[in-house]
Amino acid sequence: MAITVRELAQALDARAWGDLDLPVTGAAEPAATDPVGPQGGTIAMAMAPKYAAALKPGSIAILAEGMDPEALGLRAAILAQRPRLLMAGLTRAFDPGPGIAPGIHPTAIVDPSATIGPDAAIGPFVVIGAGVRIGQGARIGPHVSIGRGTAVGDDALIHAGVRIAHGVTAGDRLIVQPGAVIGGDGFSFVTPEESGIEEIRRTLGSRDAIRQQHWTRIHSLGGVEIGDDVEIGANATIDRGTIRATRVGNGTKIDNLVMLGHNVVVGDDCLLCSQVGIAGSSRVGNRVVLAGQVGVNDNIEIGDDVIAGGASKIFTRVPAGRVILGNPAVRMETQMEIQKAMRRLPRFAQQLAKLQEAVTRLLEKG
Amino acid sequence: MAITVRELAQALDARAWGDLDLPVTGAAEPAATDPVGPQGGTIAMAMAPKYAAALKPGSIAILAEGMDPEALGLRAAILAQRPRLLMAGLTRAFDPGPGIAPGIHPTAIVDPSATIGPDAAIGPFVVIGAGVRIGQGARIGPHVSIGRGTAVGDDALIHAGVRIAHGVTAGDRLIVQPGAVIGGDGFSFVTPEESGIEEIRRTLGSRDAIRQQHWTRIHSLGGVEIGDDVEIGANATIDRGTIRATRVGNGTKIDNLVMLGHNVVVGDDCLLCSQVGIAGSSRVGNRVVLAGQVGVNDNIEIGDDVIAGGASKIFTRVPAGRVILGNPAVRMETQMEIQKAMRRLPRFAQQLAKLQEAVTRLLEKG
Amino acid sequence: MAITVRELAQALDARAWGDLDLPVTGAAEPAATDPVGPQGGTIAMAMAPKYAAALKPGSIAILAEGMDPEALGLRAAILAQRPRLLMAGLTRAFDPGPGIAPGIHPTAIVDPSATIGPDAAIGPFVVIGAGVRIGQGARIGPHVSIGRGTAVGDDALIHAGVRIAHGVTAGDRLIVQPGAVIGGDGFSFVTPEESGIEEIRRTLGSRDAIRQQHWTRIHSLGGVEIGDDVEIGANATIDRGTIRATRVGNGTKIDNLVMLGHNVVVGDDCLLCSQVGIAGSSRVGNRVVLAGQVGVNDNIEIGDDVIAGGASKIFTRVPAGRVILGNPAVRMETQMEIQKAMRRLPRFAQQLAKLQEAVTRLLEKG
Repeated sequence: MAITVRELAQALDARAWGDLDLPVTGAAEPAATDPVGPQGGTIAMAMAPKYAAALKPGSIAILAEGMDPEALGLRAAILAQRPRLLMAGLTRAFDPGPGIAPGIHPTAIVDPSATIGPDAAIGPFVVIGAGVRIGQGARIGPHVSIGRGTAVGDDALIHAGVRIAHGVTAGDRLIVQPGAVIGGDGFSFVTPEESGIEEIRRTLGSRDAIRQQHWTRIHSLGGVEIGDDVEIGANATIDRGTIRATRVGNGTKIDNLVMLGHNVVVGDDCLLCSQVGIAGSSRVGNRVVLAGQVGVNDNIEIGDDVIAGGASKIFTRVPAGRVILGNPAVRMETQMEIQKAMRRLPRFAQQLAKLQEAVTRLLEKG
Repeated sequence: MAITVRELAQALDARAWGDLDLPVTGAAEPAATDPVGPQGGTIAMAMAPKYAAALKPGSIAILAEGMDPEALGLRAAILAQRPRLLMAGLTRAFDPGPGIAPGIHPTAIVDPSATIGPDAAIGPFVVIGAGVRIGQGARIGPHVSIGRGTAVGDDALIHAGVRIAHGVTAGDRLIVQPGAVIGGDGFSFVTPEESGIEEIRRTLGSRDAIRQQHWTRIHSLGGVEIGDDVEIGANATIDRGTIRATRVGNGTKIDNLVMLGHNVVVGDDCLLCSQVGIAGSSRVGNRVVLAGQVGVNDNIEIGDDVIAGGASKIFTRVPAGRVILGNPAVRMETQMEIQKAMRRLPRFAQQLAKLQEAVTRLLEKG
Repeated sequence: MAITVRELAQALDARAWGDLDLPVTGAAEPAATDPVGPQGGTIAMAMAPKYAAALKPGSIAILAEGMDPEALGLRAAILAQRPRLLMAGLTRAFDPGPGIAPGIHPTAIVDPSATIGPDAAIGPFVVIGAGVRIGQGARIGPHVSIGRGTAVGDDALIHAGVRIAHGVTAGDRLIVQPGAVIGGDGFSFVTPEESGIEEIRRTLGSRDAIRQQHWTRIHSLGGVEIGDDVEIGANATIDRGTIRATRVGNGTKIDNLVMLGHNVVVGDDCLLCSQVGIAGSSRVGNRVVLAGQVGVNDNIEIGDDVIAGGASKIFTRVPAGRVILGNPAVRMETQMEIQKAMRRLPRFAQQLAKLQEAVTRLLEKG
């Protein structure tokens, strides 16, 4: 898969320096990058001055604009304006992918009423239900199951063991990591009479009559609607809606072990990091970033462009553009002040006790 | 799947109004419900006055008792005493289910010593081990594996890709969402000499001699015992017990990505919401509700009818009937007061500093 | 699978007492252990005096050294120096395992270029890619998929439905519980211009210009490198590295639903309990214990021998040997003091208000 430095620079839309005909075979960290040999060599990722020390003379590297390839003794270099962005193109260029063979594997079970787009690749032991539509160029790994009437757009990449239930629709360029479950039933139950949870929501915490009650299931008739350019992480779960669909907007990226409850609506271009949980019927705006282990209560609304720091627990509505942190989540600056004060809290307690003594003495004197 | 308004009202044990012979084809949100056509139409879920505005004249709806179908221009209506409960019956009536074909799929591998109940449906690529018993009317989706000697009761619904290990017993009407794992080995290890964790539990936090130690595995000989009417969420995991079984009581519902450790005992009619984790050997009573992301320490006891708010972290025993919140979890009212005080904490710090100054001045004067 | 008391004691390297020829058929809790019959009987786990009360005369038991088998009316006993350690040997002796039949199941699809070690057992519907190497004596359950070029060492036990992607290497005696995913793509995205997250990291929380941005994927070229004697829990996920590999050291045990992000490095002999999440590029030392639901921020370092209590959220570097707790995590003693003070916080608020009044009066008088 070697390409020349020139070709790589063109693909990355970046400036190149040195011997542009050298073949590049892959990318590596500076310490793992040897000087270029007769077959070419890997290109070292040294996109900040602190990484330059490990570069070996005679090798090829990607540097940040402003670094000096000649002084570093390189044979060739590509100069990045925005190194992280260039990284995206570079890693795409060298990603061999999961290796799903073209065509439909003979062990795959595809319902005759399903439509498989041209150039789609379907792996061993895949099960595709009635009326399913799979777009052009889609790749589906081993042991995937796709339920009745579900539609997946063009160029999807669905990794091994993914479960997509019936009645799900997804746009183009969907990526689903192994083991993710899309369209499981919502967690929605009701008791014949008022339940304890309904009671404490009404009374804000106090309980009157505790009685034995069984839970009756509310079935999930809605499906899941997923936009274009969405990625869903390994073993993440997205439940189907009750009456309408659970929705994920265009360009939203969802990490491993994330949970989206029934009826949740997530907007466009969001990042939901690992182990985030969003409870039933909550709505998340566009370009929202929820860091790892964030929790969102049910039935609340998070505005556009909100950023929530790691493990924030969000119990109430968050206005657009706010940066929040903590349990319960508050503005990040406020949380920082609270945390500072909390660390001083044991000292406060002592100071308060001393003050009380002093004032008592003053009062006695007075 | 259309039924008449009359039949639906009878099935839901609710009062009907208007043209009871109109056919109902499904349920939808008010805005998505069109006036009834020649083939009938969907029924709008408008079970609170705030939803009534979106209702279109000439359509069919479910209303809460007290709302006026005539004033809303409806053709027919069903009046609900307890709307959420009626929702359960309604969604059950219209749920087409996952579509598992009757019979045993020819690709399924069923051990000759396994017993499959009458009318059970077993999907493609299922693997069923020696001595397994599957109840009457059970439905098992594709790619499920069930280990040696496990028993599943009547009318179970086991979705795609579920893993049930050997030595598990489950009652009737079990529902398992895709990807759940029942009966993985417990996370139980021991070091030849006292480990760091044992040391800090004994010393409450201080460590004396840190030394290199390897972990030796304690195998899990116990299985998992699950009652009747239990539901287990997508990608949830329930570990087997060490010597005796891990247990889940009748009627308990477990959401996606929940973790029950080895030897855990959960009572009847509990709700364990998404991403809850219960560590090894803890015991949870009956009718306990743990909201999303709640954590329960190992070896503790949670009494009957406890309700824990979202992301509560429970480190110590909780008496029956208590409503708790926070990390560490305390009574909900106490937590609310703590949170209020925490938000004022930075202000306290300032006030305290001012007071100290004032008192110092007073003392100097004195 | 019965062995004599003598053989069991020898296998456990422990002292035996009584009739050493009695056959032991399994292990059970004291209350579930009947007196020895003609075929022998189970051995009761009664390794602390509090468990002795439930022992039935005429049975066999494991006791802690110092307990008296004769006074308890036992027929035979094994005396444990360190009961928890003996438990490891005992449960290993009686674990029947998942029951994967020897040989390669005829439905398994093994690429001709893969190398399968002698005595390996490969279950039904397994898919093994090109160039994969599976060690001697490895056991692989049903529905497992292993991607191109991955290597798994000797005596591995890979349970049902595990997904191991391409380019993963694992040492000997690897155990992977059902549904775990090793080698999913990292969650790594970049926007063409500075993203909101980059902005708030730079400004510590304030946002200037919010603009629409799409996320571009950084592909994961690195694999996952796993040492010897590692265990990975059910539905856990370990992402592949970006350029170099994500790494897990020898002897480290990882529980269910744990998430290790891309480029994470975990040292030797760690315990990562259920639902722990470690964000991208963080480094964890040797013998570190992270209790359930702990979260670790990205790009930080946790020293050797650190122990973090349940649900600790770690945002900054932790020095070696420290015992920490809380959100944000601080030294456990400090956290305990903070929690004590927090519970008294509402009272502080009252006391402070009273003091202010008193001082105001004093100042007025003065």
